[in-house]
Amino acid sequence: MLQMERYYAERVGDMQGSDIRDAFKLTEDTNVISFAGGFPAAEAFPVPLIEEIMQSMFRHDYSGLQYGPTEGLEELRRQIALMMDAEGVPSEVENILVTNGSQQALDLVSKIFLDPGDYVLVEQPGYVGGLNAIGNYQGRKVGIPMDDDGLRIDIMANKLKDMAGKGQHPKFIYTVPNFQNPTGVTLSMERRRGLLDLAREYDFLILEDNPYGNISFGQEPLPHMKTMDEEGRVIYLGSFSKILIPGARIGWVVASPVVIRQLTIAKQGTDLCSSSLGMKLVLESVLSGKLDAHIESLKVIYRRRRDAMLEALARYMPSEVRWTHPQGGFFVWLRLPSYIDTKALLPFALDEEKVAYVSGKGFHVDGTGHNTIRLAYSQAPEAHITEGIHRLSKVIRRRIETAM
Amino acid sequence: MLQMERYYAERVGDMQGSDIRDAFKLTEDTNVISFAGGFPAAEAFPVPLIEEIMQSMFRHDYSGLQYGPTEGLEELRRQIALMMDAEGVPSEVENILVTNGSQQALDLVSKIFLDPGDYVLVEQPGYVGGLNAIGNYQGRKVGIPMDDDGLRIDIMANKLKDMAGKGQHPKFIYTVPNFQNPTGVTLSMERRRGLLDLAREYDFLILEDNPYGNISFGQEPLPHMKTMDEEGRVIYLGSFSKILIPGARIGWVVASPVVIRQLTIAKQGTDLCSSSLGMKLVLESVLSGKLDAHIESLKVIYRRRRDAMLEALARYMPSEVRWTHPQGGFFVWLRLPSYIDTKALLPFALDEEKVAYVSGKGFHVDGTGHNTIRLAYSQAPEAHITEGIHRLSKVIRRRIETAM
Repeated sequence: MLQMERYYAERVGDMQGSDIRDAFKLTEDTNVISFAGGFPAAEAFPVPLIEEIMQSMFRHDYSGLQYGPTEGLEELRRQIALMMDAEGVPSEVENILVTNGSQQALDLVSKIFLDPGDYVLVEQPGYVGGLNAIGNYQGRKVGIPMDDDGLRIDIMANKLKDMAGKGQHPKFIYTVPNFQNPTGVTLSMERRRGLLDLAREYDFLILEDNPYGNISFGQEPLPHMKTMDEEGRVIYLGSFSKILIPGARIGWVVASPVVIRQLTIAKQGTDLCSSSLGMKLVLESVLSGKLDAHIESLKVIYRRRRDAMLEALARYMPSEVRWTHPQGGFFVWLRLPSYIDTKALLPFALDEEKVAYVSGKGFHVDGTGHNTIRLAYSQAPEAHITEGIHRLSKVIRRRIETAM
Repeated sequence: MLQMERYYAERVGDMQGSDIRDAFKLTEDTNVISFAGGFPAAEAFPVPLIEEIMQSMFRHDYSGLQYGPTEGLEELRRQIALMMDAEGVPSEVENILVTNGSQQALDLVSKIFLDPGDYVLVEQPGYVGGLNAIGNYQGRKVGIPMDDDGLRIDIMANKLKDMAGKGQHPKFIYTVPNFQNPTGVTLSMERRRGLLDLAREYDFLILEDNPYGNISFGQEPLPHMKTMDEEGRVIYLGSFSKILIPGARIGWVVASPVVIRQLTIAKQGTDLCSSSLGMKLVLESVLSGKLDAHIESLKVIYRRRRDAMLEALARYMPSEVRWTHPQGGFFVWLRLPSYIDTKALLPFALDEEKVAYVSGKGFHVDGTGHNTIRLAYSQAPEAHITEGIHRLSKVIRRRIETAM
């Protein structure tokens, strides 16, 4: 057989598999309590609504079965534009591109903007799927540290000054401002303004990825950066994966018409069009008028799970462990003592206590983060969360005791 | 507003919009008889089967709603492997990747194999979506002419010798061997062997794209090149778009496990996974046992349309026009006298006779083909085909008379 590797493109060297996707395989053992995969709760999918839609979806027309326009079904784009209007982003149909999940939007944006070696600012820790999309086009990722208010804009300002001195100009920053994956933190209002100021000063674009924004636990949502954007500098990404179902693979981009046109041309050669079946299902769900109530019910479910996790962490974790307090979304982020390697700890957690998590190292672009953990509370019922955190605390406690 | 073009990557210069996608817009006028879009016949979609599947699809499990594995649902991969076995390509689950239509497979293969400037052999005329995918990664396309038996292997041999002399080594050839888009022609058995011999001699890969192979009008299908491949040199692409529905966006790749793994890593960063909804629908369709009978019914429909088109061409076209005689698939290819520019002719066809086609120029990589036309018979009923060809013949006849 041929050695295929010798035919590979250079970019293959920059491609990385995701620990998280691998971690899903760990969770097939039903005795394991898993906080690894950040999937939405399957039991909260609106199955009756979907079944109702499917019963009549194919009677009216063939648009859910045939090839669709590359940009997306026009009526779906119109409905998304209305949703964005309501969230403070004035939009028309020509501002909207429907994508195969927002992961495809990350790919297409990287495809039209990144030459090999181009600099991209990323959150550290940052969403692995975003880092992978950028890596696939050989973007050079520069990690900006995070705290409980999101990106450290002060550190970013210094970094940009340094970089400018060396002639290094980032093309864009990739950020998940609301209930970030993996940390659960939200970029504060002041820092949103600060980020826009820096983008203007150093002339880079902002890729604002907001899959979790609608899963908010009470606080008034902060304005999108796209809302504050007067120059077309922000490219906004949204998704139906967390508010409806991921299986439809329907996300969207909001940007200026010229960018939407270029992304559309890139998408033609990438997959012709998104799933018509998925687009039509999402469209009918939106038109049903039942999506808002469904989102409210999701907030209740995820809020309870977040509460259960924070309570269990407070009750069981040794004092050496620190964690974030998310106001929405799916994730809590743990920082363990620096002498603990969470990747090395994982087999013990699985074997001894049957609990799974994702080591935080893969969310870092500079090799740090060995002592961090991402926990997803989205998929486990409250009782499992309490029990799972108890188990995890025992593994960590034993590791701390061994080190003493 | 910002001038966004100045942020674009270099590859944007190689990206091309498709005339064909634009042509779809022409066909919204219901008075126009269109041979432009090569969509499958919507009236032949198996709506009762799909409705039946949808009624129980969400009762059993959530796999059609949740995120799926990047490689595709395992049971679907197993069923595809069985289909490939039956077609003479021994396959296991790990040889199969499910993609978002076979267009995504073209993208992913280009993504893992093409560095900017790499040479790729392509059919001339060739499928625009394939040319676009290659262009998106800045592959240098070298067109190999076609005749009624497909690729001219003799010309290809000379070309490869020339190229080797200049140190130019193609990474792969992209070919649609059965009922090709846009010409409808099929690569002969002798030439399949010849192509494999050349691939071995000059050490390049073969990307065998076979979306139309199952829509065959009687002749015994020729063996896939993947069947004759003993080295893992052939990457095979299949699709459910023409035999079931395009709206599910489900295609697949057959390759060695090492290539499937690399494509999977590339797909993680590209869109995480294909539509679970689409995968599950396709899986249930295959498991229903009704797909073979459905394909037989499609062959009858498309054969009648092919017959109607060939009969009308023979009856109405002036003797200066030549065309292909497809034994399957969706397309007939016309060659007009060299003084006719079919792109310039199109507005007259639309305005004067209300008939649409795709000019063949966009299927050529060297700027030739100005006097060629692609006609799709897949979407028009027989009576429209006869009438549409009659109309087109009048436009062409007038143009020929003007030139005299």
